[in-house]
Amino acid sequence: MFLSSDGILTIENVKVTEIVEETGTPVYITSKAILENNLNAYKSAFPNEGLLYAVKANNNLALMKIIASHGFGADVFSDGELYLASLAGFDKKKVLFNGNSKSRKEIEMGITAGVKFSVDSLDELRTISEIARESGKEVEIAFRVNPDVDPKTHPKIATGLKESKFGIPHEMVREAYELALKLDGVVPAGIHCHIGSQILDLSPFVHALNKVMDIAKEIEQLGVDLRFVDMGGGLGIDYEGKGAPTPKDFANAILPEFEKRKAELNSDPQLWLEPGRSIVGNTTVLITRVNAVKRGYKNFVAVDAGFNILIRPAMYGSYHRVAVANKMNAEAEETYTVVGPICESGDILAKDRKLPKVEAGDLIAVFDAGAYGFVMSSQYNGRPRCAEVLVNGDKWNVIRERESYGDLIAKQKLPDWLL
Amino acid sequence: MFLSSDGILTIENVKVTEIVEETGTPVYITSKAILENNLNAYKSAFPNEGLLYAVKANNNLALMKIIASHGFGADVFSDGELYLASLAGFDKKKVLFNGNSKSRKEIEMGITAGVKFSVDSLDELRTISEIARESGKEVEIAFRVNPDVDPKTHPKIATGLKESKFGIPHEMVREAYELALKLDGVVPAGIHCHIGSQILDLSPFVHALNKVMDIAKEIEQLGVDLRFVDMGGGLGIDYEGKGAPTPKDFANAILPEFEKRKAELNSDPQLWLEPGRSIVGNTTVLITRVNAVKRGYKNFVAVDAGFNILIRPAMYGSYHRVAVANKMNAEAEETYTVVGPICESGDILAKDRKLPKVEAGDLIAVFDAGAYGFVMSSQYNGRPRCAEVLVNGDKWNVIRERESYGDLIAKQKLPDWLL
Repeated sequence: MFLSSDGILTIENVKVTEIVEETGTPVYITSKAILENNLNAYKSAFPNEGLLYAVKANNNLALMKIIASHGFGADVFSDGELYLASLAGFDKKKVLFNGNSKSRKEIEMGITAGVKFSVDSLDELRTISEIARESGKEVEIAFRVNPDVDPKTHPKIATGLKESKFGIPHEMVREAYELALKLDGVVPAGIHCHIGSQILDLSPFVHALNKVMDIAKEIEQLGVDLRFVDMGGGLGIDYEGKGAPTPKDFANAILPEFEKRKAELNSDPQLWLEPGRSIVGNTTVLITRVNAVKRGYKNFVAVDAGFNILIRPAMYGSYHRVAVANKMNAEAEETYTVVGPICESGDILAKDRKLPKVEAGDLIAVFDAGAYGFVMSSQYNGRPRCAEVLVNGDKWNVIRERESYGDLIAKQKLPDWLL
Repeated sequence: MFLSSDGILTIENVKVTEIVEETGTPVYITSKAILENNLNAYKSAFPNEGLLYAVKANNNLALMKIIASHGFGADVFSDGELYLASLAGFDKKKVLFNGNSKSRKEIEMGITAGVKFSVDSLDELRTISEIARESGKEVEIAFRVNPDVDPKTHPKIATGLKESKFGIPHEMVREAYELALKLDGVVPAGIHCHIGSQILDLSPFVHALNKVMDIAKEIEQLGVDLRFVDMGGGLGIDYEGKGAPTPKDFANAILPEFEKRKAELNSDPQLWLEPGRSIVGNTTVLITRVNAVKRGYKNFVAVDAGFNILIRPAMYGSYHRVAVANKMNAEAEETYTVVGPICESGDILAKDRKLPKVEAGDLIAVFDAGAYGFVMSSQYNGRPRCAEVLVNGDKWNVIRERESYGDLIAKQKLPDWLL
């Protein structure tokens, strides 16, 4: 999809130089075709399972409309994500409200919208029950359980270890479902876990599935009719060009195990998954312009996007492939470290990469920037946030306009005595 | 300043409960009195030096107006910060445009505004010279030099090590000033360094000052008339309650050394400093509401502010003191880990803290949140950004309104074919 023509990086049939001439830099550019390939790969690997897109990975409305139109549900993590998912047209029956810290307002909003809840604590269960009763509704819930499984990923995104803030510890799950069965307004209908993110080894998923199915058996005996077993998201993508499991690989690893373990149950739960990164991650490149090249202890390429725009390298030490988008046919000649304009030494996009000779004015492409890219961006260092573009064959559209200086002060109000 | 009355945390004379009743949570609350104390402490410690407020620490207009009215200059790191500093009324002659990656547009804007530049590379110098010549202006510049000094702080904010992306390496400084003397439109007038942030041991500053003054002697011999020596910012604050050097301590450590070394020069440069964190850090508390308390392997207090609102703990492992703002007189009873609502295990505000018994609905105060707080906040997980409040004696004003769901989509545009 990212073919080069005349040495210019091309997204579907559009040269990135054509786009940045109009939008300026930095800009996130997404390929609709890659997005649809990813959606189709999931649908064919999991034809009978519940697929909930993890909105946290990328909540751009245009992308979410495409995802919703493919029949996906949504995993939302806040009132704002529920709002966006609703605008994008996701079927509320296929929306699960996740999260370890939901406010009363968020719970009220979810109940009014008629979505299901993944419940993280008994405090939350009681609040949901209270609000559901007041509004005369019945809410289908799952508990997020903590399987204590090591997903072999970055510690900040390993969410299923027993020290994690997420989920009900194994030994308290029984008590949680018992309480849910007793309380009005809530119907325990599922079980949910999520062991982490950017997972490339499938065995922790199988390990976690078995732990969850053990719990499923246990809670069935309490009288719970299990309608879904949600194994969360976390499938990794191929940031480093070393390969990554496909949705089909994932299905081959997990589906036979699920069927086997389901046969031990009385109820007939559907398997649910919450892919995010593996849906949107590889659909998008970030294009950033070189302001200066500096030679010193290292060769630094200073570009106009820093961790204000893409925080993953600075925050998690993540690797993204980079290229010189206007010199795709040139030979790699020198080793460069690509750094952003932010006031911190950690503001490095790519360390020690062999690239063609880089000059001020060149465009650097940062690949696989579709997940946890724009959604984590900030106005740090007083930098307005950047634009987003969607390419569809020969055509392209700005799907998010660049912010202006005015957007830095839009919500600010000076007290009279400071005028 | 943060006295409690009836067990309620009070900012100047205003109870935080009174504020959050109107603004909701999370909310950043700043004390004008503490801000002015900090400004006065710097002014009395450095009466004859140049004090440039580091806008990156907190670019709220109301706070910056107060800072500018005290005669401070500004250290800006982007076009956006220059825009905000200009609105806040900083004298352009006292504004230094810093940064390792300035776009042509940023340089044009700075030259038009008539600010000085800290130049990070020869590429940048040439661009400034070119634009200055085109517009018939003369720009006073300093080079940011890399002194290769270890500031003994977090690696992500140690900016003066030789591997850092910042500054001209020592052995290339001479060449840089020689080029600046030759090029039209630029006047080498200063020298600049910045060794890092949140520095509690003053000796690296003295060490760096000596290295910079060595360079100053060297470049004077080239014919440079030095008007300022800018030692940057970086003075740490007392996050942990273990003490921190005051501006007076800083002055005592650095001024005699500066005077001694200045006597070796022919020119008569002024010492400049760029305090940020030590001006605004301790002025502000973040108030966040408890959504749920969960007991498990640990006791978790789940609040409504996560690293979307305050990223320092998640990004740098930073420590902030916390308290239960509505139970200030209660005895600490239990150990809690305070976590936010974000979808990552790293979303922890405070780990293993002894606090009074915490219940859903309580308010948690996170202290010393005035620097690198709101400015680094994002809409991650679809969460609109929070409000900011300024307290002035008995009165208080909202100085930044909470964002709405509409602000999540304000810049988004759906292509026709997706309607």
